[in-house]
Amino acid sequence: MPGALHGVRVLDLTTMVAGPVATMMIADQGADVIKIESPSGDLMRRFTRSADRLPASFLSCNRNKRSLALDLKSRQGLEILKKLIATADVFVQNFRPGTIEQMGLGEEIVRGIRGDIIYVSISGFGDQGPYANQRAYDPVIQALSGLAEIQADWETGRPRMVRAIVADCTTALTVAQAITAALFAKERSGVGQHVRIAMLDAMIAYLWPEAMPSLTFVGEESDPSLGERGPDLVYATQDRYITAGAMSDAEWEGMCKALNLEHLIGDPRFKTTAARAFNSAERRRLVAAELEKWRADEVLPRLLQNDVPSAPVLSRFELLAHPQIKASGILEEHQYATCKVRQPRPAARFDRTPAEVRTLAPQLGQDNSAILGELGYSADEIAGLARERVLHGRQS
Amino acid sequence: MPGALHGVRVLDLTTMVAGPVATMMIADQGADVIKIESPSGDLMRRFTRSADRLPASFLSCNRNKRSLALDLKSRQGLEILKKLIATADVFVQNFRPGTIEQMGLGEEIVRGIRGDIIYVSISGFGDQGPYANQRAYDPVIQALSGLAEIQADWETGRPRMVRAIVADCTTALTVAQAITAALFAKERSGVGQHVRIAMLDAMIAYLWPEAMPSLTFVGEESDPSLGERGPDLVYATQDRYITAGAMSDAEWEGMCKALNLEHLIGDPRFKTTAARAFNSAERRRLVAAELEKWRADEVLPRLLQNDVPSAPVLSRFELLAHPQIKASGILEEHQYATCKVRQPRPAARFDRTPAEVRTLAPQLGQDNSAILGELGYSADEIAGLARERVLHGRQS
Repeated sequence: MPGALHGVRVLDLTTMVAGPVATMMIADQGADVIKIESPSGDLMRRFTRSADRLPASFLSCNRNKRSLALDLKSRQGLEILKKLIATADVFVQNFRPGTIEQMGLGEEIVRGIRGDIIYVSISGFGDQGPYANQRAYDPVIQALSGLAEIQADWETGRPRMVRAIVADCTTALTVAQAITAALFAKERSGVGQHVRIAMLDAMIAYLWPEAMPSLTFVGEESDPSLGERGPDLVYATQDRYITAGAMSDAEWEGMCKALNLEHLIGDPRFKTTAARAFNSAERRRLVAAELEKWRADEVLPRLLQNDVPSAPVLSRFELLAHPQIKASGILEEHQYATCKVRQPRPAARFDRTPAEVRTLAPQLGQDNSAILGELGYSADEIAGLARERVLHGRQS
Repeated sequence: MPGALHGVRVLDLTTMVAGPVATMMIADQGADVIKIESPSGDLMRRFTRSADRLPASFLSCNRNKRSLALDLKSRQGLEILKKLIATADVFVQNFRPGTIEQMGLGEEIVRGIRGDIIYVSISGFGDQGPYANQRAYDPVIQALSGLAEIQADWETGRPRMVRAIVADCTTALTVAQAITAALFAKERSGVGQHVRIAMLDAMIAYLWPEAMPSLTFVGEESDPSLGERGPDLVYATQDRYITAGAMSDAEWEGMCKALNLEHLIGDPRFKTTAARAFNSAERRRLVAAELEKWRADEVLPRLLQNDVPSAPVLSRFELLAHPQIKASGILEEHQYATCKVRQPRPAARFDRTPAEVRTLAPQLGQDNSAILGELGYSADEIAGLARERVLHGRQS
């Protein structure tokens, strides 16, 4: 059985990460995602040292898609895209506000061609406010959403960025869900609509439930960073760092047993959740001092056996070989020309409509001929369009 | 017009954050999400100091839902839930592997009642591997997914946790998208299915595209942390920290102009993207030294005017009043008893099927009577079930 979104066609004009990862999720679930590229292609194609190979980051943002590379500044290029729009369910773009209209592909024109299309606009900041026209880089969103402050160095007060582009990745998931919800509404009621997602909004919505409780009651706000001074749950052992934490009574008892600290089980300082919270500094000190005496491969199995949430802090390099990663099958290997490419399979597993990696990311314009053929262009016409530099890339 | 998922009914047995935030997104988009709670309710209800008020974090994970609190260990409680299952499209649970079957609500039984239901299982680690039965706390997922290593202190090598529960939040988005895709498949083809999501898988899929390129080509892996030693894009000004970055030539030129460093525009060390990357340490040093001479409110408008991606690093407290946050309308205020509650509106904006905050989070069992009434129970029967301690909470 094909994927859950089989039969859906998406025209994807986005580049870089947030948009492409969103449409990749949709593609993983069976949609026909056509990546519409400029003659020079998505900038991410150039993040490589090996000219005959697609860069790893591009491969991980664009699998299961087809590529059509055409010059949208030419009359004929625009005409081809408009023919495709007539066949599509979703149109996605992440240009800065105003740009898509200048290209002649504003919502009104697109909807004039296909009345029930889902028109998706991804932006950094929405179309209002002082930053509306600014290009959105991940650190800017981290700075404005409070995330950089959350990570601040507690000694110096200097904010720190999370070293992963979480604003892009979070936006990607938010967009993928929104597109899917709009597809459901269209399937049920026939309605096409405009869906707008701003990265800054996505990041604030993502962080809010846990990071901003003290801002929730209007008029009673207090600075959420006050009182956030505890160490994180990273402990040194003799040979490596691990994490371990005991929330419930049973977990605390398990931790005491695992560490041969049974005398602490009945200790009134730690007997209840409230007492453990009140005496957390002392508790962390005792646990840390004890863990430093153990080797990780001795203590981790004991913690696991006693039902204490715990794990080694793995480097990314190590996770490839970790038994839990192996057992989950999250990492797959796919043949790619003369080498193999490792990809995470789609995280959500559907037992009747499996999501899967069917094809790796396309070369620029790899599907020009196939897609134009589907639109009714003859081989001669396609060759002519390539000669006239309307079509671009390897196969055109 | 109602939300995109209007007409969908979700039975939500999840607690804490990952599951509840997923179903909240679905509820924001119009689904009827019934939160099925134990007699004591979701543990998050207790994270408060004020007994007559729902805690802020619970409010931010459970809006737009109804609450039915019943004793699933009683024959009658289970019977009520089974009647509800017959009316539902989606059933979501995040108990540890094996638990839901022990409760008599395994997939086979649920599907026996409602053949086309979407049965969703959220777990920490999937049902295989050494951690399969371990309770999943956010730091454990951060440790195993490589995220804690990504954040390591570059001086000491000590890993650091991201101080936001990103594993939960990322899982929530992944689950919401997967449920929505399964709803689309069910709408189109009538198929119901089992959807499984593990937090560790969701986190690795989220991080992979950017954080793990050097693990992508099989047999050519190198440690992704090698070479990751640059400072992050945080700069001190005279009065506060800001972020600013120049990727393109135009942005670099803009930065030089904003900082009165026009003489650097033609400098061969910084003239091209490649040169700027090669000489990044020197470039950062020059920019940092210059920025320290400025006040943020002088230099930020100059950076913005010159199209340089930049922003103040806002504290969460400050973001409430920032003009960009105000302009985007991401934060809304809703009346709640005698006070007002601030919530982010749903990040994705649908122009035809608006997602919105219709109701705040429910009190425990607030909707017992309404829901049982819909199932055909009389007021007398409902009162009887409350007396027999099958139904619980404020309104039962």
